[in-house]
Amino acid sequence: MLAAVFQVRAVGSPKPALHVLLWQRALKPEAGKWALPGGSLRHDEDLTSSVRRQLAEKVDLREVAHLEQLAVFSDPSRVPGTRTIASTFLGLVPSPATPELPPDTRWHPVDNLPPMAFDHGPMVEHAVARLVAKLSYTNIGFALAPTEFAVSTLRDIYSAALGHPVDATNLQRVLERRNVITRTGTTARSGRSGGRPAALYRFTDSRYRVTDEFAALRPPG
Amino acid sequence: MLAAVFQVRAVGSPKPALHVLLWQRALKPEAGKWALPGGSLRHDEDLTSSVRRQLAEKVDLREVAHLEQLAVFSDPSRVPGTRTIASTFLGLVPSPATPELPPDTRWHPVDNLPPMAFDHGPMVEHAVARLVAKLSYTNIGFALAPTEFAVSTLRDIYSAALGHPVDATNLQRVLERRNVITRTGTTARSGRSGGRPAALYRFTDSRYRVTDEFAALRPPG
Repeated sequence: MLAAVFQVRAVGSPKPALHVLLWQRALKPEAGKWALPGGSLRHDEDLTSSVRRQLAEKVDLREVAHLEQLAVFSDPSRVPGTRTIASTFLGLVPSPATPELPPDTRWHPVDNLPPMAFDHGPMVEHAVARLVAKLSYTNIGFALAPTEFAVSTLRDIYSAALGHPVDATNLQRVLERRNVITRTGTTARSGRSGGRPAALYRFTDSRYRVTDEFAALRPPG
Repeated sequence: MLAAVFQVRAVGSPKPALHVLLWQRALKPEAGKWALPGGSLRHDEDLTSSVRRQLAEKVDLREVAHLEQLAVFSDPSRVPGTRTIASTFLGLVPSPATPELPPDTRWHPVDNLPPMAFDHGPMVEHAVARLVAKLSYTNIGFALAPTEFAVSTLRDIYSAALGHPVDATNLQRVLERRNVITRTGTTARSGRSGGRPAALYRFTDSRYRVTDEFAALRPPG
């Protein structure tokens, strides 16, 4: 099992960016290169228990708001030595949590990855592609966002995760219409530029769901 | 690897239904129960090659129009004996193909499964849930439908796959608006009830894609 855990970091700074959690290999093979956290399945655990156990060594698990199976990487020559099949997971940590990390572990921006071990580079790409796709038809953004947020903050998070600019007004309109986000009724204490205080929102559900089904396909009643 | 391969069968009959391809175990354990096709990974193949090789023993592969990885089932006690982890796949066969099947293999309606071996019942449920979800935000229906079809045929296929009635007019409107289906410009040779000949459609793409992204999240340009 290997987990690609993402967080949008430096929200509020000029350029918040999507980061992935990596650790630097100390030993051969591929010493010095960066790898996804993970390890081997024990005989008495299933994949999800295993990835949770192994992630717990890197990051406080209470901060992982979403965890799902991704693809299995099974190329016979993906790692040297004994054949190893890797089942990958996608994990998401909300902003602005700042979990403590062990010394070998660091957040790296996905658009500027360090030299990656084995096939972990393509694994990160695959996980980003899944995240981008799911942002467009599910409420998965809840797992990257703070509990309450101004639309401008959410815009920063979506822009960083998608890798391109998003218009705050459009984002708000679409997510409200689909009942993905809800107004809390309160406002942020003060606007950065001293303007009108921004309305605060929260995700309507903090459990993953598809939000964008074809209306024509919904069950009757 | 195990594959849940689906087809909507008896399209045009009063009640077309979603079916899954199962084979009956001849040997212990679980002799007589029904199982998903599959088998073990060889040392020189990856998962997708393996599942294709194993499916080829059951059904002509040219008829599998879509194949994707589903979940990994890894409960330590999921099968007796040596620990075995199962990586499952979703496969789709268009109507009205009638692949030849080996004698131990049969299509079963998913709403009336026979006694299932091991955890293969939950695997079928998982695969159906994935298919239903994807029908609602992707063009995956192409892999269940004939190359050209009247809207009433497509309605039968969607209704069977979703497990509930779908309105043909709504379905046509939504799928046309999202450019999932396109009019061919021709008509069916004759309506069943002798009425006006039905316009024929095809899927705009016969490659899987998400069709229903939030417009606000699309890349600029």
